[in-house]
Amino acid sequence: MTNLKPSDKALVPFVSVDKMMKLIHHIGVEDMLRGLAEYIEADFKRWELFDKTPRVASHSEKGVIELMPTSDGDVYGFKYVNGHPDNTKDGFQTVTAFGLLANVDNGYPVLLTEMTILTALRTAATSAVVARLLAPKGAHVMAMIGNGAQSEFQSLAMKAICGVDEVRLYDIDRAATAKCAGNLAGHGIKVVECDTAEDAILGAQIITTCTADKQYATILTDNMVGSGVHINAIGGDCPGKTELAPAILHRSDIFVEFPEQTRIEGEIQQLEADHEVTEIWQVLTGQAEGRRTAEQITLFDSVGFAIEDFSALRYVRDQIAETGLFQPLDLLADPDDPRDLFGMLQRAG
Amino acid sequence: MTNLKPSDKALVPFVSVDKMMKLIHHIGVEDMLRGLAEYIEADFKRWELFDKTPRVASHSEKGVIELMPTSDGDVYGFKYVNGHPDNTKDGFQTVTAFGLLANVDNGYPVLLTEMTILTALRTAATSAVVARLLAPKGAHVMAMIGNGAQSEFQSLAMKAICGVDEVRLYDIDRAATAKCAGNLAGHGIKVVECDTAEDAILGAQIITTCTADKQYATILTDNMVGSGVHINAIGGDCPGKTELAPAILHRSDIFVEFPEQTRIEGEIQQLEADHEVTEIWQVLTGQAEGRRTAEQITLFDSVGFAIEDFSALRYVRDQIAETGLFQPLDLLADPDDPRDLFGMLQRAG
Repeated sequence: MTNLKPSDKALVPFVSVDKMMKLIHHIGVEDMLRGLAEYIEADFKRWELFDKTPRVASHSEKGVIELMPTSDGDVYGFKYVNGHPDNTKDGFQTVTAFGLLANVDNGYPVLLTEMTILTALRTAATSAVVARLLAPKGAHVMAMIGNGAQSEFQSLAMKAICGVDEVRLYDIDRAATAKCAGNLAGHGIKVVECDTAEDAILGAQIITTCTADKQYATILTDNMVGSGVHINAIGGDCPGKTELAPAILHRSDIFVEFPEQTRIEGEIQQLEADHEVTEIWQVLTGQAEGRRTAEQITLFDSVGFAIEDFSALRYVRDQIAETGLFQPLDLLADPDDPRDLFGMLQRAG
Repeated sequence: MTNLKPSDKALVPFVSVDKMMKLIHHIGVEDMLRGLAEYIEADFKRWELFDKTPRVASHSEKGVIELMPTSDGDVYGFKYVNGHPDNTKDGFQTVTAFGLLANVDNGYPVLLTEMTILTALRTAATSAVVARLLAPKGAHVMAMIGNGAQSEFQSLAMKAICGVDEVRLYDIDRAATAKCAGNLAGHGIKVVECDTAEDAILGAQIITTCTADKQYATILTDNMVGSGVHINAIGGDCPGKTELAPAILHRSDIFVEFPEQTRIEGEIQQLEADHEVTEIWQVLTGQAEGRRTAEQITLFDSVGFAIEDFSALRYVRDQIAETGLFQPLDLLADPDDPRDLFGMLQRAG
């Protein structure tokens, strides 16, 4: 069998998990979070020109598989992501993901990449972009409730982008808290392990909740939340899953990514369908107000949106061009004559 | 930097273009077409249990990028495919594709594969499955109008699955016909190069049209089509693109894959929205009649459907398990502790 080398047109740059980890170490995790934040903010500011296709979800008893496509007219991107809460019992990840960018003009993919780690980074960067916009002035202490896979990324993004210098950790599982505290050691941030959620909230201007897996759990009750805080609600995020008591929602000014999606998946599924919310992109472009008073409670009801993945994919595409941290993948058949696919096959025999 | 080897859970079997060509040569192209036909027929017979999500299309001036997902409840599959008619001018393929299978139970991908070549094979196998069902008894001559990338696959599928032993070729571009005739030489099929479409049709019981790229082109006019033939209309296939004169449609009994999609993209976009069509899966399961008389004109208005890709993905998954013709791709982050994604990253540093 001859080995006809695939042409450049056949090869798609692929960032494996290994290459993604090398890329993060090469750039530095905090610099990467800042870089992602820049791309996310830039894309939020041109929100209106994006294709806002709803997620295409395939539900089963055990979980969901989703495709999240979007396009800015020049570049098309999508993410494949699953959500299976019981997976950890069998040693599998709850969420895994990969993503793709393609040229709109010719439909050819230009990047295929792991997105399990990248999604954790873009979620943290998005939280920090919004917290920088909405948290009270001088905020520097964050309560991190739920110390799972997302918690370290959240903490470092808030440090790198918002100037948070103290993180107060709480999880119903002490081992998760110890894991998070251990991972954050040496990152220039004061870490306090707390015995209760109430203790974690003490002195915090930013409260991040990132728990999952329970039906309508209440992680924060009304009496726990004082005035003047910013709540960053990340966990829950599918129909039937929420973290916050409805009373907190009623006391808060609520900010969302894409209302059509958040009303189904976010905390606000507990509210009336016409409850007022503000879209983050409108605050970023100056079309809507963010925080108005020091006493106000701001709530980012975050569920993640395709445009954030698109920003992350753009960022990775630009970084690998500089660093070469990818492998070329022979994904696309490229016959010399486009009409001669069969001839290409025969010549390979 | 340490090199932590990815675990089995991180690795997804990947079939590159090179590996797909090796697989086809290993199995033999006609045996592979027969194998694909078996899988497609089996899935058509259990049509009702599939998720029938419409394609998720992102349109631009130059073309379209589509995601085609489906699921049978156990396995989930999707195809990424573009369609850009002007691509060949720049040496790019009009259509490229790749696909993925995943376990519904845990959302983990189990196969990533090129699908540019695989789509050509599954399209040909689908045509032959339907022709075996609908073509007049003893059909053994096929007219192949349009001699581009799909033509050799169509010819060999009709030979392998329906017993066609003569193919009469016509294309407005003689070079395409010569290319097709050259590629088919030595495959045990009589090949006749024709100067006109009328000449190609002489004595043919099956007429396959596979042209593209023109708005409402008329490849077959009414006077060209006599009684008792089976027409396999593959080309066209998007809104505004058709091949057949409406008068032919009115004289034919029309069979389709998924009416909701065919009415938008197929030949029947030229007809009233309630024009009677028969679904192929119903003929295969005996719920609807196929050919009733020798004089009848049967028309398969084929636009391709996600379930055919699903069948092809299942077939490839089963073949690579036996042949080992894949490479393991480090696509999924797999920390030892699912909650410790950050720790995995740190340990790689």
